[in-house]
Amino acid sequence: MPPRPAGRRADQLRPLTFTRQYTRTAPGSVLVRAGHTVVLCTCCVEPTVPDFLVGKGKGWLTAEYAMLPGSTGRRKPRDKAGKVDGRSVEIQRLIGRSLRAIVDLSQLGERTLWLDCDVIEADGGTRTASITGAFVALVDALQSLQNDLTNPISSIITDSVAAISVGLVDGEERLDLEYVEDVAADVDFNVVMTGSGRFIEVQGTGEEATFTRQQLDSLVTLATAGIADLTAAQKQTLGQLWPLG
Amino acid sequence: MPPRPAGRRADQLRPLTFTRQYTRTAPGSVLVRAGHTVVLCTCCVEPTVPDFLVGKGKGWLTAEYAMLPGSTGRRKPRDKAGKVDGRSVEIQRLIGRSLRAIVDLSQLGERTLWLDCDVIEADGGTRTASITGAFVALVDALQSLQNDLTNPISSIITDSVAAISVGLVDGEERLDLEYVEDVAADVDFNVVMTGSGRFIEVQGTGEEATFTRQQLDSLVTLATAGIADLTAAQKQTLGQLWPLG
Amino acid sequence: MPPRPAGRRADQLRPLTFTRQYTRTAPGSVLVRAGHTVVLCTCCVEPTVPDFLVGKGKGWLTAEYAMLPGSTGRRKPRDKAGKVDGRSVEIQRLIGRSLRAIVDLSQLGERTLWLDCDVIEADGGTRTASITGAFVALVDALQSLQNDLTNPISSIITDSVAAISVGLVDGEERLDLEYVEDVAADVDFNVVMTGSGRFIEVQGTGEEATFTRQQLDSLVTLATAGIADLTAAQKQTLGQLWPLG
Amino acid sequence: MPPRPAGRRADQLRPLTFTRQYTRTAPGSVLVRAGHTVVLCTCCVEPTVPDFLVGKGKGWLTAEYAMLPGSTGRRKPRDKAGKVDGRSVEIQRLIGRSLRAIVDLSQLGERTLWLDCDVIEADGGTRTASITGAFVALVDALQSLQNDLTNPISSIITDSVAAISVGLVDGEERLDLEYVEDVAADVDFNVVMTGSGRFIEVQGTGEEATFTRQQLDSLVTLATAGIADLTAAQKQTLGQLWPLG
Amino acid sequence: MPPRPAGRRADQLRPLTFTRQYTRTAPGSVLVRAGHTVVLCTCCVEPTVPDFLVGKGKGWLTAEYAMLPGSTGRRKPRDKAGKVDGRSVEIQRLIGRSLRAIVDLSQLGERTLWLDCDVIEADGGTRTASITGAFVALVDALQSLQNDLTNPISSIITDSVAAISVGLVDGEERLDLEYVEDVAADVDFNVVMTGSGRFIEVQGTGEEATFTRQQLDSLVTLATAGIADLTAAQKQTLGQLWPLG
Amino acid sequence: MPPRPAGRRADQLRPLTFTRQYTRTAPGSVLVRAGHTVVLCTCCVEPTVPDFLVGKGKGWLTAEYAMLPGSTGRRKPRDKAGKVDGRSVEIQRLIGRSLRAIVDLSQLGERTLWLDCDVIEADGGTRTASITGAFVALVDALQSLQNDLTNPISSIITDSVAAISVGLVDGEERLDLEYVEDVAADVDFNVVMTGSGRFIEVQGTGEEATFTRQQLDSLVTLATAGIADLTAAQKQTLGQLWPLG
Repeated sequence: MPPRPAGRRADQLRPLTFTRQYTRTAPGSVLVRAGHTVVLCTCCVEPTVPDFLVGKGKGWLTAEYAMLPGSTGRRKPRDKAGKVDGRSVEIQRLIGRSLRAIVDLSQLGERTLWLDCDVIEADGGTRTASITGAFVALVDALQSLQNDLTNPISSIITDSVAAISVGLVDGEERLDLEYVEDVAADVDFNVVMTGSGRFIEVQGTGEEATFTRQQLDSLVTLATAGIADLTAAQKQTLGQLWPLG
Repeated sequence: MPPRPAGRRADQLRPLTFTRQYTRTAPGSVLVRAGHTVVLCTCCVEPTVPDFLVGKGKGWLTAEYAMLPGSTGRRKPRDKAGKVDGRSVEIQRLIGRSLRAIVDLSQLGERTLWLDCDVIEADGGTRTASITGAFVALVDALQSLQNDLTNPISSIITDSVAAISVGLVDGEERLDLEYVEDVAADVDFNVVMTGSGRFIEVQGTGEEATFTRQQLDSLVTLATAGIADLTAAQKQTLGQLWPLG
Repeated sequence: MPPRPAGRRADQLRPLTFTRQYTRTAPGSVLVRAGHTVVLCTCCVEPTVPDFLVGKGKGWLTAEYAMLPGSTGRRKPRDKAGKVDGRSVEIQRLIGRSLRAIVDLSQLGERTLWLDCDVIEADGGTRTASITGAFVALVDALQSLQNDLTNPISSIITDSVAAISVGLVDGEERLDLEYVEDVAADVDFNVVMTGSGRFIEVQGTGEEATFTRQQLDSLVTLATAGIADLTAAQKQTLGQLWPLG
Repeated sequence: MPPRPAGRRADQLRPLTFTRQYTRTAPGSVLVRAGHTVVLCTCCVEPTVPDFLVGKGKGWLTAEYAMLPGSTGRRKPRDKAGKVDGRSVEIQRLIGRSLRAIVDLSQLGERTLWLDCDVIEADGGTRTASITGAFVALVDALQSLQNDLTNPISSIITDSVAAISVGLVDGEERLDLEYVEDVAADVDFNVVMTGSGRFIEVQGTGEEATFTRQQLDSLVTLATAGIADLTAAQKQTLGQLWPLG
Repeated sequence: MPPRPAGRRADQLRPLTFTRQYTRTAPGSVLVRAGHTVVLCTCCVEPTVPDFLVGKGKGWLTAEYAMLPGSTGRRKPRDKAGKVDGRSVEIQRLIGRSLRAIVDLSQLGERTLWLDCDVIEADGGTRTASITGAFVALVDALQSLQNDLTNPISSIITDSVAAISVGLVDGEERLDLEYVEDVAADVDFNVVMTGSGRFIEVQGTGEEATFTRQQLDSLVTLATAGIADLTAAQKQTLGQLWPLG
Repeated sequence: MPPRPAGRRADQLRPLTFTRQYTRTAPGSVLVRAGHTVVLCTCCVEPTVPDFLVGKGKGWLTAEYAMLPGSTGRRKPRDKAGKVDGRSVEIQRLIGRSLRAIVDLSQLGERTLWLDCDVIEADGGTRTASITGAFVALVDALQSLQNDLTNPISSIITDSVAAISVGLVDGEERLDLEYVEDVAADVDFNVVMTGSGRFIEVQGTGEEATFTRQQLDSLVTLATAGIADLTAAQKQTLGQLWPLG
């Protein structure tokens, strides 16, 4: 079996960095790098909620995801009128659900938090890096709102959230697949978990392949370890703003 | 804990029926009923393939999913120009991937198989019923093509496929959720498996909730048993056309 | 001249059946079969009216028509963003006008009745079957509203409505064309009439052909007889719910 | 009963004029005025045919219809992405069918004739004026093609075509309704006929009203007389170019 | 150097005419002809303003521009859902800005003025003819509103506006380019000015070419002289309605 | 008159930096910063040309421009199906024209160069920074193609290009407006010039204001000096790759 790119161990994350306050315009603005995957996660706040929530006294959180045209080896055309990118739709729904699972929307007031995840450079794992970075941007945005909120941020945010991919490549179970591994993988899992070790989402797919119960079990175990490392990195970058115990 | 609707056991499927040749127009045409969920699955054959496959001598399989406006208690507006239903996009991608996992496209010739799943009546589990019914429609459509195919159907179809939902409702793990359970569920899994017991897709989601590793494990076990029952029902309805050993 | 398919007389309807309460989800839900043409007509009620009627104390009725992809011999692509099916637009406008002609909208209250006609299987005459079936679905839906209405249904519905096609095929005037006759017809009429024998709509078209005044006259006479048979069938299926004298 | 506007008799057309060669850019370009209804009908020629006709050696004819925003008393918004005007779709399909009925497309060569009917000012009867004017534009456009055509125009055009509205207003049967009559009419017919007195299309509609067989008969008779007058006017404006005997 | 078409001098406008009250339907309706370029400019008034102005007590002015399909030598397809004509978008934004520069919107009340410029025949300079004609239509529309306005029109309209193109063709600086000159031009300027000689917009473009500062200066000078002629023509056609000193 | 933000002189550029090879995925990838305006300019190469150029042996260059949602103080919604952002359309057309003016497309072979300018942070002057950065990305992309090109880059690129804004703020003529100046400006010019001092585009606009000939002249002079500074910065960042003498 050939070794992983850059000599990584099967259970090793790519180098991960967060650049907070990457832009001045959005209250939360985090550039997350996982190896060569680079995503800009911004969190904007709007003083309105969707129609179905108006007058209910609670807030909303939604996400959008897109890849810049130059973010892939072959230029990716932008979404145009009348042409939907099904993959982007799936991903932004996943990001939204994942973040909503750890925010108590009833404590937000009638506000909408917009998490925008724009891929600057894609090398596999863009959706999981988006979730991991979006959590940091969310904390920064809530921090900027602090004076307008009734409750402390540590009450509004009930847990942290991070996400990672795992997969079966050449028969080996690997953590945090980069692009060349992703296309070679028979099975690909995206796992979203809280910092306290609970699951928010498990999506395991065999595209033109299948997998056994035993493989399912050990891939989930591998992901769980990776999430713990991501949570530690989020905690470190947020420092005193870390909203959890 | 209140009992399940209609006195079902937690590990019991709803009554399931397949009506094959439901219409004369499509070569595969199966009305699948799972309790009050009713889906029409048709399989049409087109003698062309998408651009990225032209001239490669292999076939393609794709799926579309939609709900009729009258299929839900509150009328569901149709997709209109410029308004995308993200949920439908996700579901039709899932159906397509699931079916492609058990078809050897290289043996199809340059043809496209279209699986259309239209929900006549929705009572939870429409995406999983779609997959389970689509497999039967696929076999019927291939049967109608038999004389044009080089290889036998039992060679083209490498396994059967079925899907089921499981979830955590009021703390109980339940199989095959109907609508009132689905909205009350804290955790919702959709599991796609082959007749031989291998996994194609596992999607577990806690919408505004989370779940533990132990819950994940036992929900997957519950789904596995349900899939075995579905496979038996598919085998029975297809009779001599069952393409597998 | 070759005989009609299935040995039908020139002035004979295809076998016609209505299955009421076909689904549980919509208050009116009728599967109408005219030979091999099968249409699901549902009638949903929404507690709002379009902008131009808000505050006027009257109701609205509108219709939508679509063909399922597998309803024709060659798969019919769904309407997509930015691509309009002109034929569907024409048909749904016709269905809406036809039903509005026999409903006193001022007695409805501020409600919208949605008539959705989805073609399950197409063998000619889908638009006329849609109208004939939609009337039955409308009565059932109003029945479910009975307690919320000020006036009796027999006051709101001023007449019954049904529709039929007639055409000139191989020089013969025929009633209720099926698909193979429809494509061979030189002239094609769709006639919408009330149960009391008045006309709502007459649409006669010679696609790449023309017709004389005498042909016009006798085709309309043929249609009138067919409508009487359809009205009798509607009356029979509705039984005691028949809202007219 | 109040008299008609401008003292017209019930069976009298509005003043009708054709301005040929209204613009230099299109080979056929006719401004047709019927009273205060003004439509610019252009006929352009493209050296290609739609996909379904490529390689068959015959031509195609299609039509588009639109109203300028300032053509009505209340500004009419333009069609925008994702918003379809069902009425315009119906009308342009009618115009296309009507013209195709009198052109032998097999003698055109692989060309498409585009009939564009743009309403400059609307005062009722825009669709029928469009058809009547489009015929004149068509003859002019074919004239400009003369040297490229194998057969004479009198062979390609098999008959002339014109159209008129009739309706029931205040119980009176009237020819060529203007706007104030159109909105007051209980029944509205659009009739398309050839110069030789054959019917191409009869569309009779009772919007929120119905009509009897006797009314149908006498409205059609009234329209027939009007069409004869329109045909005479077309013949006069075309002079020596009149392609028929 | 070959002479200009029709023997025009380099600094000479094409023959210019305005036909006011071209249609009865819109309160301002001007057909402007500049040589063979013909544009219908209508000005409609709506009693509402866009959302961002509601409740602010001021008005709005906006413009739309389109070319009729038959207005060019090769048929121009209409804008369809999902296909944007970038050039039209640019032009209608320019028309709107140009007219807003000379209207005091705060004196309009909560009304929207819609300037629609539809090109009947295109022979170069359609955008500048649109602006020049739209000003005349605007004055006529305000005149029709006179009784509803608090202030006199001469207070609401602060200046007149007109526009012209200039360009470099075969090394010669020319005023008011017609189509054959436009496509041959190395540099093309559109200049919008007020009647009092101030600039509203200068757009100079070298498509696949560049120009010097000296050329810029003398082209602007040439345009300035042309605008003076256009202003005189506007003043003459409006006569006593000319709202300026 | 209050001083400029950050104590800038009226004729002084904001600090300008180029980060080349900002991403690995696109052959040209430049992050340009002008003060707080940040734009990512990528240049991708596709081995095809638009339909109108196929078989002509020459290449094409086109541009797209978009703002990330978090790039402005108030979140900017993404372009969605059926909703066009007219301003973006204008800007991307300007970028494309500007770059095409200095590339000899006939020496490219049948290739398309895609310049994508995505605004990461907006503080005024995003369109001009896009052009200035896109030139650097273009040179880098051509460098990566070098072995596939027949001619040297110094032959394909005929000049350099840069762009800057100037405007009238509080009566003062200022170079390189930032956002707070831009909204306060009475007049706003965008000037695109080559490194050799020739003009490609001059766009001067008075939104709800006008300007004199003298102001036009001196604003253009101010821009010319700014362009010289930008050209020097481009030359410095490209070093030996500078394709001009």
